[in-house]
Amino acid sequence: MDLDRIREQTPGCREVVHLNNAGAALQPAPVSETVRRHLELEDRIGGYEAADAAEEALNESYSVLARLVGADPDEIAFVENATRAWDMAFYSIPFRPGERILTTTSEYASNALGFLQAAQRHGAVVEVVPDDGHGQICLDSLARMLADGNVRLVAINHVPTHDGLINPAAEVGKLAREAGALYLLDACQSVGQLVVDVREIGCDLLSATGRKFLRGPRGTGFLYARREVARELVPPFIDLRSADWTGPDAYELRPDARRFENWERFVAGQLGLAAAASYAMDIGLAAIEERTLALAARLRAGLAEIPGVTVHDRGERRSGIVAFTHETVAAPQIVAALAAAPRRINVRVAEQTYRYDAGARPPLRVRVSPHYYNTEDEIDLAVAAVATAITG
Amino acid sequence: MDLDRIREQTPGCREVVHLNNAGAALQPAPVSETVRRHLELEDRIGGYEAADAAEEALNESYSVLARLVGADPDEIAFVENATRAWDMAFYSIPFRPGERILTTTSEYASNALGFLQAAQRHGAVVEVVPDDGHGQICLDSLARMLADGNVRLVAINHVPTHDGLINPAAEVGKLAREAGALYLLDACQSVGQLVVDVREIGCDLLSATGRKFLRGPRGTGFLYARREVARELVPPFIDLRSADWTGPDAYELRPDARRFENWERFVAGQLGLAAAASYAMDIGLAAIEERTLALAARLRAGLAEIPGVTVHDRGERRSGIVAFTHETVAAPQIVAALAAAPRRINVRVAEQTYRYDAGARPPLRVRVSPHYYNTEDEIDLAVAAVATAITG
Repeated sequence: MDLDRIREQTPGCREVVHLNNAGAALQPAPVSETVRRHLELEDRIGGYEAADAAEEALNESYSVLARLVGADPDEIAFVENATRAWDMAFYSIPFRPGERILTTTSEYASNALGFLQAAQRHGAVVEVVPDDGHGQICLDSLARMLADGNVRLVAINHVPTHDGLINPAAEVGKLAREAGALYLLDACQSVGQLVVDVREIGCDLLSATGRKFLRGPRGTGFLYARREVARELVPPFIDLRSADWTGPDAYELRPDARRFENWERFVAGQLGLAAAASYAMDIGLAAIEERTLALAARLRAGLAEIPGVTVHDRGERRSGIVAFTHETVAAPQIVAALAAAPRRINVRVAEQTYRYDAGARPPLRVRVSPHYYNTEDEIDLAVAAVATAITG
Repeated sequence: MDLDRIREQTPGCREVVHLNNAGAALQPAPVSETVRRHLELEDRIGGYEAADAAEEALNESYSVLARLVGADPDEIAFVENATRAWDMAFYSIPFRPGERILTTTSEYASNALGFLQAAQRHGAVVEVVPDDGHGQICLDSLARMLADGNVRLVAINHVPTHDGLINPAAEVGKLAREAGALYLLDACQSVGQLVVDVREIGCDLLSATGRKFLRGPRGTGFLYARREVARELVPPFIDLRSADWTGPDAYELRPDARRFENWERFVAGQLGLAAAASYAMDIGLAAIEERTLALAARLRAGLAEIPGVTVHDRGERRSGIVAFTHETVAAPQIVAALAAAPRRINVRVAEQTYRYDAGARPPLRVRVSPHYYNTEDEIDLAVAAVATAITG
């Protein structure tokens, strides 16, 4: 990995120490240039005309995203963000009363809200699989709960938004497949950070975003829908992109995953998203994963040495997301101190209201999320800045 | 209206004759600069950090959009585009079996697909109100059909996407209100083109887009939801933006229209959308409407003089959208000829599969949609280019 070149291509590296990649990463120039060039073309010749001119690249974007996650191009839908990608998948599942949804203790709160709606509307039953003591979904419990039958869906996150754990996505996939349950993986925090391969994981549906570890534009995301599953699911919303209106009372859905799209879109963003996926693949996801996890480990070790600091990350194998608190200095105060450091350090307050695992951790924590383009020096600088913030 | 200044601020005017404003308009520099500046800030300091820095402007964007349509800021939701704005409104209505949806013959096909889903899922009954011979919704018929009772929703477009008519939105509002029916207005083609005032129109819900006559960015739109109505409707999707997760089986929806939003968004686009609304209001919507409709009238008159050309626009009062065909030269051929003209002229093929009024017009037409920033010379140039394209 040519770190010097990568950092040179990342203008933000000159201005900030960016450790908020679980929020939104710094974009590399090839991504922001792609967006900027298309926006300029729109200004010059018109929005639809620019999209016509970019037709080939737009078609190619599906292949690029497919390659990123080991899918085929017809299994990819471009969606506005990971939340809407997840929504389009989840809300297309026609739950029958009593059908069970199994999830994990660390599930993202927005997804849990979706489960609640399915329970209210369709009488689906939401059950939280216990974790294994490391915060990860317990595979034995999952197997037992699947064996009880009537599970329509297993829906979990791959990497939670503020915890250091990585869920055993492929093992879950194997169990879900054997039980005949659908498997929806929220990969919002893992795509771009880890090697993610939908066939290896065995998920039916996977939602992802552009702006986080993939280093793409805000306002972009995508959905993977396994060919056989996409064909069966009726999207919650349809328009002229997803369906043809064929007669007074009839319509025909597209046969591929694009049935989950809508026609209008942030075209420049879609091109930027593909550029981000290409950029990540050029570097190599295995190398990205290795370096990101190593930087996070270095960060945890450094933080743990500061008196009064507790690192809250669970997980046998830990992700690029680190969360900590101090026994007396509140999280927002630490975040503000880092933002005001001589070289601005971007970290974030991880806030939570209710969660399945709400009791497990303090409600306000500092989330620090490095990425491969950060340096060891930046990690050490952040640790030192935390120590300074605490001693005052 | 200072046309020279406006055109100077529109870089696209130097390169093309843009008559595809019903597709996506050329953006004025204050809009594209707003977007560009925020994207650059994201590159420099990070996506979340840039949004924090823009917090005031983002809050202000709701006031700006509210002012544009005569609403209050808490009645505005920022949504990805007009389709999704319409979806969030429409799919939040809990239809009971047998409840009626009244629409108009020229309704947008994507909306009609939504009606079909509501019919299939909830047993709603879709009824098309006859038009008045000018293509506009017939008010007498509407009054009669409302009197039959059990109408849950009147959902129509303000200006159809390929027809020159303007529906009598305020008269429909009065009738719907009297009958106690909800009223959803698709204002995708009217906001930015016409004076649109939600109180005067009397609609409960109104969906709009950024990219068309408002001259904003692609990937932006908004929803107006009347305060009393927003409070009652449960959005089809919810996330941490629209609701708080308050306990194992409980959530609380936001009290305002932002319950129809999702947290993640194209932030630069939201700022650009507000800039576009400000720009339009600075010029004045009444002046914009007057000039746009006058240019379209000039265009129709010029086209009608070309032998073999039929202008298909209906409507007693006609919008900025013009559609025509020639008796022998196909629409795509005319569009291609104009695109290849010495000064490129952007017009569009209006294509349709099934529609309520499918029989009324040929399936392929040329759509020409001027806007206030076009000149009379450009209109005449386009008419001459059509005449040339036809004579070969």
